[in-house]
Amino acid sequence: MSQPVDSAVSDVRTYIENHRAAFLDDLVAWLRIPSVSAQPEHTADVRRSADWLAAKLKETGFPTVEVWETPGAPAVFAEWPAEDADAPTVLVYGHHDVQPAAREDGWDTEPFEPVIRGNRLHARGAADDKGQVFFHTLGIRAHLAATGSTAPAVHLKMLIEGEEESGSPHFRTLVENHAERLTTDAVIVSDTGMWAEDTPTVCTGMRGLAECEIQLYGPGQDIHSGSFGGAVPNPATAAARLVAALHDEHARVAIPGFYDGIVELTDRERELFAELPFDEERWLRTAKSTATHGEAGHTTLERVWARPTAEVNGIGGGYQGPGSKTIIPSSARVKLSFRLVAGQDPDHIEKIVRAWAADRIPAGIGHEITFSGATRPCLTPLDHPALQAVVRAMGRAFEQPIRYTREGGSGPAADLQDVLAAPVLFLGISVPSDGWHAPNEKVELDLLFKGVETSAYLWGELSASSREAH
Amino acid sequence: MSQPVDSAVSDVRTYIENHRAAFLDDLVAWLRIPSVSAQPEHTADVRRSADWLAAKLKETGFPTVEVWETPGAPAVFAEWPAEDADAPTVLVYGHHDVQPAAREDGWDTEPFEPVIRGNRLHARGAADDKGQVFFHTLGIRAHLAATGSTAPAVHLKMLIEGEEESGSPHFRTLVENHAERLTTDAVIVSDTGMWAEDTPTVCTGMRGLAECEIQLYGPGQDIHSGSFGGAVPNPATAAARLVAALHDEHARVAIPGFYDGIVELTDRERELFAELPFDEERWLRTAKSTATHGEAGHTTLERVWARPTAEVNGIGGGYQGPGSKTIIPSSARVKLSFRLVAGQDPDHIEKIVRAWAADRIPAGIGHEITFSGATRPCLTPLDHPALQAVVRAMGRAFEQPIRYTREGGSGPAADLQDVLAAPVLFLGISVPSDGWHAPNEKVELDLLFKGVETSAYLWGELSASSREAH
Repeated sequence: MSQPVDSAVSDVRTYIENHRAAFLDDLVAWLRIPSVSAQPEHTADVRRSADWLAAKLKETGFPTVEVWETPGAPAVFAEWPAEDADAPTVLVYGHHDVQPAAREDGWDTEPFEPVIRGNRLHARGAADDKGQVFFHTLGIRAHLAATGSTAPAVHLKMLIEGEEESGSPHFRTLVENHAERLTTDAVIVSDTGMWAEDTPTVCTGMRGLAECEIQLYGPGQDIHSGSFGGAVPNPATAAARLVAALHDEHARVAIPGFYDGIVELTDRERELFAELPFDEERWLRTAKSTATHGEAGHTTLERVWARPTAEVNGIGGGYQGPGSKTIIPSSARVKLSFRLVAGQDPDHIEKIVRAWAADRIPAGIGHEITFSGATRPCLTPLDHPALQAVVRAMGRAFEQPIRYTREGGSGPAADLQDVLAAPVLFLGISVPSDGWHAPNEKVELDLLFKGVETSAYLWGELSASSREAH
Repeated sequence: MSQPVDSAVSDVRTYIENHRAAFLDDLVAWLRIPSVSAQPEHTADVRRSADWLAAKLKETGFPTVEVWETPGAPAVFAEWPAEDADAPTVLVYGHHDVQPAAREDGWDTEPFEPVIRGNRLHARGAADDKGQVFFHTLGIRAHLAATGSTAPAVHLKMLIEGEEESGSPHFRTLVENHAERLTTDAVIVSDTGMWAEDTPTVCTGMRGLAECEIQLYGPGQDIHSGSFGGAVPNPATAAARLVAALHDEHARVAIPGFYDGIVELTDRERELFAELPFDEERWLRTAKSTATHGEAGHTTLERVWARPTAEVNGIGGGYQGPGSKTIIPSSARVKLSFRLVAGQDPDHIEKIVRAWAADRIPAGIGHEITFSGATRPCLTPLDHPALQAVVRAMGRAFEQPIRYTREGGSGPAADLQDVLAAPVLFLGISVPSDGWHAPNEKVELDLLFKGVETSAYLWGELSASSREAH
């Protein structure tokens, strides 16, 4: 770990301690706004949440704060230039909308009436994502106080969207429309978590996603399996044979070209994954599964974080009601999703899946394949200077070694990476027990303030790593 | 073809001609009764149909006629002993209930207001099955008239059920409960058809049927394919792999033991099938399919009539709505049906399917297999004396060579074969254009009267073949 760069740890901690109560009061006020983007009855609340955040960012000191409209819910953009024109630019991403929540879903208290019990602040959005957006406001102020500056050490931008919990339907267009305003050297995504309370980690990448539906057409209508069975092709059989052919006997994806060009895990990354205190039995309980199963030659963590997959998300065809019906169904369909890793291009995946399917569907069965919007994978190499800056900032806050994880899911961060051509770094202090999307969502207060502290160090570390890189 | 045995053809034809109008009037009256067993609002009509038939069989001369109750719709039983106590016993099977029908389904006229247009009598039930049951009444009387007898040449029994169009749910129990009254040397099923107007045929067997549903259980609930994808087994994949493993690369059923003990087609049967004027393009149009597909080494007719099959009738699991959902589904299910041929035992099939499935389902996926009621296959060898009696009777009526078919479907005839331990013979004059279960169902009047005439010869032929056999 390097030495402090721009401020003494003690100055930062003192500042945070002095502003802790007011910070929590503010966060609680924000959490009271039920900014549920998926529920039309909360449309006004999502806007209120955007306006509240905009006002608070103004109050934090951002000279420019704007509410950006979309065809759906508004996003908040804020910009605070560094004094040094040559300082690097950093864009913080998060979201101000939240998942639906109702007391009757199993909450012990009202989800939009935040309560602090011991070290925990319970409320919908406490961890996902208001808490993790908001810790930057105090972090930035602590950074200024400790450095005696009036502007941050980097050109700081924030983009806090309002539709993440609804699938970010307008996010890519928003980023494309404002690409010039959003230009940045690095993106800090504050919408993830870390391994565990006692194991601070930084995430280095997310998998991408390609999705398709394959429709298979057989007889013009359901036909009698007695009269015709055994003599014409069955589209449900064709669907099943496609799904069965997705993987070889080593559980590797068997679509020709699927692994072309992928960035393989380095030995160092595999070692780092293996050092994590991973309890497979516990993981299986989280997965509500009784056995692991996956690509030969890889551990479970490697499989979910760093290996591409082909999964069937849905399959259907023929009679699915009670009892039996002796038909050859007229059609069947499968929904497939492919998780992608760095080096895989969704357009290439679409091309090879189409060729593979066409090649395997028998004569007499028609088919149609529809791909929906894809998400690219993102990955920052371990030695990337900006990643190391995040690690140093977290290390100073946590006073512990920072380990590395990845994220198996896919998210709008990839749109930022794509459109802005900038590396994406993940800074999150949430832990698996926080209950994202679940009843009794909470954030651990000590971790929340470690987030504040990390943010206080981050801008100086990023500025320093940029200087080193040049 | 042998010479006439018990009556001159001309006597029979004269008798039929003289009673043709009255016979048609009676049939039309019966067809006016909407005996739709599947529709509760027609419960009274089904009973009225049974009573009507019972009265008509009395009028025909049967000394014993009974309406047999079931938990559902009633059946009609009639018995007419031969004068010769040593005469063989023959049981005629048919049904007096009909499929639902409504003018708005596409009928040109009211389905229960029979109309004769040219050579065709249109009404629901005209061919399936009232016309084919009723031709025996005039046939028996013509037989008596031409032979100058007061009793038929065989101990004649009829069992006309009232729930065939509802899946014969109580039929097997009915037969078991009355097994002693139903004892017979042969069963004549008058509920099938022949190849075509110009190609009279006799059916020699039906396929059997075993059906099961396989439930596959994965995660305790749908789980996120980003967080867990690639590392736990997916029950929809397991379902697909089962279905894909049903057949080998020659489209033969790949379940070990599936073909054990089956009665293979003889060379003579294959020759006879091949002699039929089969137009595959036309058959494909009937199947609403664009290509044939089936077991290597067999023709389409062999595949649908004489080869066992494994078909998936339904498959389902995971998300099947519009768009996508990135889950690993918690469960999946497949509905399979197996058409069976002579020599295959449904109990054996159940045993080997259970073993095969258990062997192929991966660790971490639970499963449950439910078999529903099976139907045994039935097959009468070409040289069976009773079958040859049917062929001779048809030959005299049609004055054409009688060819051989089989039926790919499965029916309650197998219950009669099983419970009564008697060969099942199929005598039907319906043709594919008759539109069973479809709008504008009809029977060809000239074929209907060929049925009457065949029935007139049949009892003597059966009696003679029995004497030869002894």
